[in-house]
Amino acid sequence: MEKYAANISSIREAQARIKSLAHTTPVLSSESLNAMSGRQLYFKCECFQKGGAFKFRGACNAVFSLDDNDAAKGVVTHSSGNHAAALSLAAKLRGIPAYIVIPKNAPQCKVDNVMRYGGQVIWCEASLQSRQEVANKVVKETGGILIHPYNDGRIMSGQGTISLELLEQAPLIDTIIVPISGGGLISGVALAAKSINPAIRILAAEPRGANDTAQSKAAGRIITLPETETIADGLRAFLGDKTWPVVRDLVDDVIVVEDNETVEAMKLAFEILKVVLEPSGAIGLAAVLSDTFKKNPAWKDCRNIGIIFSGGNVDLGILWDSFRK
Amino acid sequence: MEKYAANISSIREAQARIKSLAHTTPVLSSESLNAMSGRQLYFKCECFQKGGAFKFRGACNAVFSLDDNDAAKGVVTHSSGNHAAALSLAAKLRGIPAYIVIPKNAPQCKVDNVMRYGGQVIWCEASLQSRQEVANKVVKETGGILIHPYNDGRIMSGQGTISLELLEQAPLIDTIIVPISGGGLISGVALAAKSINPAIRILAAEPRGANDTAQSKAAGRIITLPETETIADGLRAFLGDKTWPVVRDLVDDVIVVEDNETVEAMKLAFEILKVVLEPSGAIGLAAVLSDTFKKNPAWKDCRNIGIIFSGGNVDLGILWDSFRK
Repeated sequence: MEKYAANISSIREAQARIKSLAHTTPVLSSESLNAMSGRQLYFKCECFQKGGAFKFRGACNAVFSLDDNDAAKGVVTHSSGNHAAALSLAAKLRGIPAYIVIPKNAPQCKVDNVMRYGGQVIWCEASLQSRQEVANKVVKETGGILIHPYNDGRIMSGQGTISLELLEQAPLIDTIIVPISGGGLISGVALAAKSINPAIRILAAEPRGANDTAQSKAAGRIITLPETETIADGLRAFLGDKTWPVVRDLVDDVIVVEDNETVEAMKLAFEILKVVLEPSGAIGLAAVLSDTFKKNPAWKDCRNIGIIFSGGNVDLGILWDSFRK
Repeated sequence: MEKYAANISSIREAQARIKSLAHTTPVLSSESLNAMSGRQLYFKCECFQKGGAFKFRGACNAVFSLDDNDAAKGVVTHSSGNHAAALSLAAKLRGIPAYIVIPKNAPQCKVDNVMRYGGQVIWCEASLQSRQEVANKVVKETGGILIHPYNDGRIMSGQGTISLELLEQAPLIDTIIVPISGGGLISGVALAAKSINPAIRILAAEPRGANDTAQSKAAGRIITLPETETIADGLRAFLGDKTWPVVRDLVDDVIVVEDNETVEAMKLAFEILKVVLEPSGAIGLAAVLSDTFKKNPAWKDCRNIGIIFSGGNVDLGILWDSFRK
């Protein structure tokens, strides 16, 4: 797997680098949800990670990979929020500045997280183009190092540490369902898991209104969409040139999920598991409970399924509103 | 400690009995909450226990302690909800009936839990007297064994298994803060913890509107109240003759908490930890963050504090309403 931007060695190095800084997150299970799905489910709770999402793993690995000269000028990124908060926290732990370009439509709780961790917020428009332009400008002005939210081997390696932990916590796992957006999480998870056990199936969960991965896999090349529409605000990004080859080669299928299924999954997580999930965080549970998955004969022998609960940064008011619709 | 209804041996026996049936719940931590409290906090997440509360430990120990003849007739209890659901589930696992007397004002989600686990609901009035009368009637009619929610050595022993786990997961702990109602939880926790390390401080957290424990400790005898008023619906019961001696002897102090502090703690658990807590479940966090605790010189050397998150059965609508007040 040497042709990719990350590999099992870089992921093990990341694990050693971030071990004392990141939480080892617990794996929960529920007989009620096992019964509903007809499988054994293992929920890897990255919502309990520092900053409330898996993003801290990659950000921490990236920030602590920098040599002292590079680090001193600080780090820069653009993000819908969870990577931003994670990078702010990692930078704070290293004692360097973090410059965060955030689109104006980001959820308030994610912006609050950035500020709580001492990140310096620079606003931009909601478009990917505006994000990138503003971020490039900040890089020029500060000399800071741009840490892309996902299209970066250090980020992919950090996220891959989830698989190392998960497969130790639940060694029977034969399948992992992972939310997909830009592909940083799933590429790290896939590289680590398939390196440990090539038979493990890696399935992406993607919202109908941002199903660029399903389209990309069908087309055999990166497809971007003119616009996206989904409640899962963390899943609107498109694949990058470093994540795409891994997604192309190692992701076994993409499960496309409706937003109402994602809301129902958030509700089940709240009521049965007592876990707070943002929509992006709940989409894996939605996927495993969907007819799309249950009725697909290709996946009927997936028995022990790891599901990545990727994050829990959701405003209670928004959660309540979405439950009542 | 042989004079009490439970002891370290009965608690270790309970652990062996319920090990394969109950979840080993995770311990979470948060640097944000450590900073707010000025201590190292270890949150023992019994909200993730089966049935959404610690109660399953005691119920499971009681049900699986019965000999086959006694068990066959089923079990009976009266409860505001979490013990009821727990007993229903334990009975279901043993394949025996559970007859559950529930007051009409119990939260809907707790009643739903009883029904989900196959318990047979028998309604009563909200008073303790009505609960007991109806429960006695059911015992007569069915021949079932009454399993009291807390005033029972088997229940106390089951709850005590929390300490065995917690002190293995977080060996540095010098203090444990425990919600108190009838005393089943805290008596088990105290007996196990002090048996392992007599220097560990056990502090009860109690709502102002149901502060019968603080009054009982001051009076040196069980005090009951003509009425109670608190958002913490799980903390309205009074001490029993089996729990009181342990509370009298082994509980080092009672921290009385205002309902608004408890609501704020629920909010912090939601926003920072991504954990759903019912009011009773959050009162320990409220206690450690209260001025009552922080400013008490007696507790200034409590550095590593275990906090029992006792349960998470709360309706989202009720949670949202309480946050907006």
